[in-house]
Amino acid sequence: MTLSQQEISKPNYFVESEQILHYGIEQEIMQLFNTPSQSTSVEKNMDELVDNLCDSFLIANNANTDIDLNSLKNQFYDSEIPEKPADIKKYIEYLSNNVIDHSIHTSSPRFIGHMTSALPYFVRPIAKLMTAMNQNAVKIETAKALSFYERQALAMMHRQIYNFSDRFYEKHIQNSQSTLGILVSGGTTANIAALWCARNAALGAKDGFSGVEKEGLTAALNNYGYKGAVIIGSELMHYSFDKAADLLGIGLRSLIKVPTDSNNRVNLRSLRQAVVECQDQNLCIIAIAGIAGTTDSGGVDSLLDIAEIAHEANVHFHVDAAWGGPLVFSKQHRHKLAGIELADSITIDGHKQLYLPIGIGMVFMREPHTAKAIEKQASYTMRKGSFDLGKRALEGSRPGMALFLHAGLNLIGTKGYEFLIDEGIRKTQYLANRICAMPEFELLAEPDTNLVIYRYVPEQFRELVAQQKLTEIDNLFISEFNQNLQKLQRQAGRTFISRTTKTTNCMGKEIPIIALRAVLANPLTTENDIDAVLNDQIQIASEVSVS
Amino acid sequence: MTLSQQEISKPNYFVESEQILHYGIEQEIMQLFNTPSQSTSVEKNMDELVDNLCDSFLIANNANTDIDLNSLKNQFYDSEIPEKPADIKKYIEYLSNNVIDHSIHTSSPRFIGHMTSALPYFVRPIAKLMTAMNQNAVKIETAKALSFYERQALAMMHRQIYNFSDRFYEKHIQNSQSTLGILVSGGTTANIAALWCARNAALGAKDGFSGVEKEGLTAALNNYGYKGAVIIGSELMHYSFDKAADLLGIGLRSLIKVPTDSNNRVNLRSLRQAVVECQDQNLCIIAIAGIAGTTDSGGVDSLLDIAEIAHEANVHFHVDAAWGGPLVFSKQHRHKLAGIELADSITIDGHKQLYLPIGIGMVFMREPHTAKAIEKQASYTMRKGSFDLGKRALEGSRPGMALFLHAGLNLIGTKGYEFLIDEGIRKTQYLANRICAMPEFELLAEPDTNLVIYRYVPEQFRELVAQQKLTEIDNLFISEFNQNLQKLQRQAGRTFISRTTKTTNCMGKEIPIIALRAVLANPLTTENDIDAVLNDQIQIASEVSVS
Repeated sequence: MTLSQQEISKPNYFVESEQILHYGIEQEIMQLFNTPSQSTSVEKNMDELVDNLCDSFLIANNANTDIDLNSLKNQFYDSEIPEKPADIKKYIEYLSNNVIDHSIHTSSPRFIGHMTSALPYFVRPIAKLMTAMNQNAVKIETAKALSFYERQALAMMHRQIYNFSDRFYEKHIQNSQSTLGILVSGGTTANIAALWCARNAALGAKDGFSGVEKEGLTAALNNYGYKGAVIIGSELMHYSFDKAADLLGIGLRSLIKVPTDSNNRVNLRSLRQAVVECQDQNLCIIAIAGIAGTTDSGGVDSLLDIAEIAHEANVHFHVDAAWGGPLVFSKQHRHKLAGIELADSITIDGHKQLYLPIGIGMVFMREPHTAKAIEKQASYTMRKGSFDLGKRALEGSRPGMALFLHAGLNLIGTKGYEFLIDEGIRKTQYLANRICAMPEFELLAEPDTNLVIYRYVPEQFRELVAQQKLTEIDNLFISEFNQNLQKLQRQAGRTFISRTTKTTNCMGKEIPIIALRAVLANPLTTENDIDAVLNDQIQIASEVSVS
Repeated sequence: MTLSQQEISKPNYFVESEQILHYGIEQEIMQLFNTPSQSTSVEKNMDELVDNLCDSFLIANNANTDIDLNSLKNQFYDSEIPEKPADIKKYIEYLSNNVIDHSIHTSSPRFIGHMTSALPYFVRPIAKLMTAMNQNAVKIETAKALSFYERQALAMMHRQIYNFSDRFYEKHIQNSQSTLGILVSGGTTANIAALWCARNAALGAKDGFSGVEKEGLTAALNNYGYKGAVIIGSELMHYSFDKAADLLGIGLRSLIKVPTDSNNRVNLRSLRQAVVECQDQNLCIIAIAGIAGTTDSGGVDSLLDIAEIAHEANVHFHVDAAWGGPLVFSKQHRHKLAGIELADSITIDGHKQLYLPIGIGMVFMREPHTAKAIEKQASYTMRKGSFDLGKRALEGSRPGMALFLHAGLNLIGTKGYEFLIDEGIRKTQYLANRICAMPEFELLAEPDTNLVIYRYVPEQFRELVAQQKLTEIDNLFISEFNQNLQKLQRQAGRTFISRTTKTTNCMGKEIPIIALRAVLANPLTTENDIDAVLNDQIQIASEVSVS
């Protein structure tokens, strides 16, 4: 071990402390902490091994191997931590054979079933850089420049959505009392944080009452004379709203799920009715939520109408744009989000249509003081008036994920994101057209953005589908068929489509059916890949049996 | 662009779709999504640039540059996203000059003020691998082998703490109905998740009542006949308990903060009294929390006693061992955690004393069904009976951070972690001894683990300190002195110590004083570095002025 740079820093454990000699691995452990230049051979060797693994992983075209889950899980039963450090080469070999080989090729052009995609190459070196820098974004003392850099990246996205004046951004972008956005670990924490702010504001301190934050929910409802508190949104709200309703203490029953129309958008009449009913029942409406790209089907609610309803009711308007938010980059498609600029808070996921790694959720606030409702302090950090980003956040210690966001916005640019969004939607139209043209499939909803909901129709039902004469029993059979088809396709591993449940009208009755779900976001996916996925399903359909 | 591997996948945007020609950057954007081998020059070039940046960043010995925050923030005022993709080389140059150069050298041996450290080299290539694999741990369909691998890594830590039988681990390690631990983004989310489970269990479904999860907090308290709900722990509980009390709807007032003794451990008599008082007032005690390593001072509560108190009261016992958990690896020091194995839930941070990157929190459950209390489902994922890890979690989409945890446990091993823990505590003793031996400093508490709380004493007060005759005014002066000393030291950037507030007895009265706070966890920190930090403080003290 050489620490030539500064002789004074040379570790001296081995001469000074007798007590530790029984480990026998001191030197080995200390070498792990060498900087790259101090251990050229070790770290560079591992770099090369890992680069090769990345390379062969990323080039794969299939969705995954065909090993079944039961055989796979048998490889992970050992629960002992080894006493001595494992050999690095052997560990990487183990990793390669047991984990990497049986991981999902989320970047494959034929894995079009979930909201994952190939990522731009620059995220890989940046991941290494972020880990080497090891900044903790919770406070300025462990993230000096990064704190301002993160604020900047969030302000850039804020501006892209809300488009306020130069003066507004100049005033708030680096103002420690302003919060234009919060970087969180994902869309779920973003939605929770937004609804947390909304609850604390709706039941805040007033006239000698210290607010729900300090006094708790029961006291707050009593103080304001409410019988309960609710959150209202479409029945297609993401499961994170369930988590939020549970966490925030209002309970799942108080998450009011309004029916959607056949286009997967919330029914506005029902929504208005729900608001009136809650008001009549003297319930505190914490927030009304709109969805910009449901996880189920990509549907976008009529945000402008919901904004109006929320405004009239004087209620916090939250938009879950985890998926659809980046449509703001597209001249062709941003009209679908009209009204998003009226939202009090907006969730966007960086790891979805901003093409960044998983772990970047964002919540944006129209008003820079909204997040004050959740502010906390501690004596060793997050002091009042400081630039510590942890003051207004759900999380505490946080990595420097802003590096990905800032790099993405700069290295892809508005035109680049526009191209990516437009391409995804163009390919979605291609898939929808193919489905309509092929007798084997039935399109279940006109796609709003870049998700397609459809199903395979076994031959004996095709005539009935065309005549809209399927019975509930027929639908049950077709659902089981599609469920089995999806499982077999996943198991085979050549291509991948996910599945979901959709409500459909069957002879005047609303019934749940199983739908196949395609997500078209991967820039590497071509029309040929789409054809290949459909053809794979047709081939697999011949093997499907229904009990 | 060559996509030799499979001709069928060659993107054909440029010939087929006229509509997109106006972007003018299609090819540039598509090239970003090439795999490493398809773009050798581009990605390899960036790899090299980034490797050099990492290298010079990691070799730095000072804490940070001496640029002041106001000048620094002026560099981050632009809020426009560029239209065209930026040049990668120029962007990295920008990153280097504006962000990396003014980031905190958390790995510096003389940055001993926060819970950050140098990290083992293998985390850097693994970061790249994790990002390339882009698994989403929320569900098996986007994280096949990784789901089982994560369960295994968590079970290994569970076993290290609870040490149940082989049979126990065989039964639960890969059982989709069992949860031995949840991987979360950090200690804050771990504490929130644990207390969420505790609240939902304490006020669960019973005798026709559907439980707090569905009915909400007010209805649950009513149903059970409680007047309120509380969480009880020491006054030194991490600020995440404040967030949890707020989020969960009980309010900050219902987070009962019990005084600590001079050794920073919760006063057991006061704790018992608090429990009795809550019972007498008919309050539901959701959880009693013990701390294994307070963020303030590293103090460890008497966990065995708290376990007994919680057991007698039939209340969920949670241990926040975010910092101190890894003491279980040390034969010399694990006795300090005696009783942790009785905890119903335990928080441990991977990015603290497991020497892994930021973003790895963990909560372990003694009983494999505890986390069922927060289970959620969705139609497109997290189905009942599935191996989808998102079923029982606070977060939704999550990166494959298990790669770091599993690698750490294997590549460092129990002996390696034992060495790291023992070394940190040995160096802490060295620092405490030096402080006691130097007239310039006053040790403020005997360290329990590897945090040292002390302060600089200006010359005119040294005699009074020795005689324990400081007045409140004297203490006020010394506090301001230390606050300014810490700020100047941070600003100078050569070395770093943080500060906190501590309660002390001053002539029979409890008063708050400002304390310097050292954290000794970095394996690269030597006794020479410790001396250098103290000497730097003595030098800076000569420049401190008090208003």
